[in-house]
Amino acid sequence: MSTARSYAATAADSPLAPFTFERREPLARDVLIDILHCGVCHSDLHTARNEWGGTRYPVVPGHEIVGRVRAVGPGVSKFKVGDVVGVGCMVDSCQQCNPCSEGLEQYCDKGFTDTYNGREQGSKANTYGGYSDHIVVHEKFVLRVTHDESQLAAVAPLLCAGITTWSPLRQWKVGPGQKVGIVGLGGLGHMGVKLAAALGAHVVLFTTSPGKREDALRLGAHEVVVSKNADEMKAHRASFDFILNTVAAPHELDPFIQLLKLDGTMTLVGAPASPHPSPNVFGFIFKRRRLAGSLIGGIAETQEMLDFCAGHGIVSDIESIRADQIEEAYERMLKSDVKYRFVIDLATLPAAA
Amino acid sequence: MSTARSYAATAADSPLAPFTFERREPLARDVLIDILHCGVCHSDLHTARNEWGGTRYPVVPGHEIVGRVRAVGPGVSKFKVGDVVGVGCMVDSCQQCNPCSEGLEQYCDKGFTDTYNGREQGSKANTYGGYSDHIVVHEKFVLRVTHDESQLAAVAPLLCAGITTWSPLRQWKVGPGQKVGIVGLGGLGHMGVKLAAALGAHVVLFTTSPGKREDALRLGAHEVVVSKNADEMKAHRASFDFILNTVAAPHELDPFIQLLKLDGTMTLVGAPASPHPSPNVFGFIFKRRRLAGSLIGGIAETQEMLDFCAGHGIVSDIESIRADQIEEAYERMLKSDVKYRFVIDLATLPAAA
Repeated sequence: MSTARSYAATAADSPLAPFTFERREPLARDVLIDILHCGVCHSDLHTARNEWGGTRYPVVPGHEIVGRVRAVGPGVSKFKVGDVVGVGCMVDSCQQCNPCSEGLEQYCDKGFTDTYNGREQGSKANTYGGYSDHIVVHEKFVLRVTHDESQLAAVAPLLCAGITTWSPLRQWKVGPGQKVGIVGLGGLGHMGVKLAAALGAHVVLFTTSPGKREDALRLGAHEVVVSKNADEMKAHRASFDFILNTVAAPHELDPFIQLLKLDGTMTLVGAPASPHPSPNVFGFIFKRRRLAGSLIGGIAETQEMLDFCAGHGIVSDIESIRADQIEEAYERMLKSDVKYRFVIDLATLPAAA
Repeated sequence: MSTARSYAATAADSPLAPFTFERREPLARDVLIDILHCGVCHSDLHTARNEWGGTRYPVVPGHEIVGRVRAVGPGVSKFKVGDVVGVGCMVDSCQQCNPCSEGLEQYCDKGFTDTYNGREQGSKANTYGGYSDHIVVHEKFVLRVTHDESQLAAVAPLLCAGITTWSPLRQWKVGPGQKVGIVGLGGLGHMGVKLAAALGAHVVLFTTSPGKREDALRLGAHEVVVSKNADEMKAHRASFDFILNTVAAPHELDPFIQLLKLDGTMTLVGAPASPHPSPNVFGFIFKRRRLAGSLIGGIAETQEMLDFCAGHGIVSDIESIRADQIEEAYERMLKSDVKYRFVIDLATLPAAA
């Protein structure tokens, strides 16, 4: 066992605070990782405050992890001490069902093990995430990071925001010659813009905030449409091959469905706390359009995304924070006051009491 | 010009009654068809009573037409006098856009010409449908019927109910080894069951009426699930490759979406007058499921379906009626008192006044 320092919430109404707990000794195929940076995802806040229900306290959030290997179990073949690695939203799965054997661990029939507030496959023990100084993970769920070391803080959000947008873009074969919409310019949306543009598509960013126009263009969007403007929307009617909708707040889907061409798909990656207004069935029928969902991405696909990003110089736009700024960061996230992801520098964790 | 005898509605609140009007002389590529049988689709009732708005009176409904060629224009190459033919929901389209050139005339960018209450491509004149003794149609929109002549009344519903269910089953590649659900056992649903079974799938029929169980099995379903029974539904959780939902009445989609396996699709072919309750986004995200729509089918696909049905001995289950029974048939349709399609015998049309 090794004592981990972390930030944890001990109740839904308690602010995150320093907390120590024990990590398991590395098993044969485990990798022990000293965490350097951990991105701050909206899920962290939802879970810390039990907004989705089901939080088991104490909870140590964080599933956008970049670190360096400190030790490996005797059966580890993929990594060695000193390697720079990442860990995303999953730290295990049954590894036996059809989805697992197809590299779709996120859809494991028995449910994958979340990096935090998850249940270990055997013991069902609670898992603790990346707002901590180190973590122990089976090598199958550890990713190789080949970005320049100066970029590692900005790599962290690729492990959730990056793969969550990459996976549907790949599933629906986004590439050159296609017109692709990204709805929302937040943590997910800004990665969607970068990735879709790097994949060669013509990218249109939809936002309700005219003030985001310039930033969207800087990030790689070819056009920006203010979705509240009916005329701007109408000009794009029935012209999109694919739309990636990253907005979690309930909103009308029909105006976007109307923008899809024949056989076009809109994939939702944001899950609203209350339902979106019901989409109009005629919108689906008259152009054989589709509405779909997508959940993060598999491990092999996550590695593919990290390698693609390293090759194309893609990282997240981030603001690095100290561990003791996490509650302030949450409050700013609630006001969308972040461009576009907070990342905790774990070197700022206080020494153990 | 030729005088056609028909049944028409002259106002939303007027019952259908005998009506005569003029059909155009066959143009170079037109086929003049003596109508033998015409199926009665729920759309006929909606349009006759202006329940969707947009009805232009007088309206002669009917888009499930089987008849015999009486005359052909000089440029017609596909058909000759005496051929048995069909006409479905479309009698023309722009024939120039991408969907038209791909054989997807139902998604014509400029809008196809409905067989009734439609607008002719050039003149924009109102079109009159199959509740009439003859019709004049461009040969491109005429289908060849090769069923035995004793079956022709039961072939008529294939032209709408048949193709509307066939097209999504083909689009989503339904076949052997797949588990396929059909929701609703009406005019569309009973064809969905027959076609999916003939395509080799394991077919499960969902109904709210336990009384339909025996009939569904007779029609080819391998299992019947009463969708109000939560335990029966739960037993099929996450097990379907594809679900074809034929129910137009607003209903909860989530219980069916939960039955789809990873990457499964539910296609809606019924359009409710008011929206379905909004589906839960988590249902899409957690198994990358899809909700889609589909509209009738293209002309080439309709011919493929007719040929498949002729080869497999598939027709609709029908009740033949006289033309003067149409209003009574509408009332019985509203009570779902039909197994499973009324078909008008046009020989019963009264002589011209």
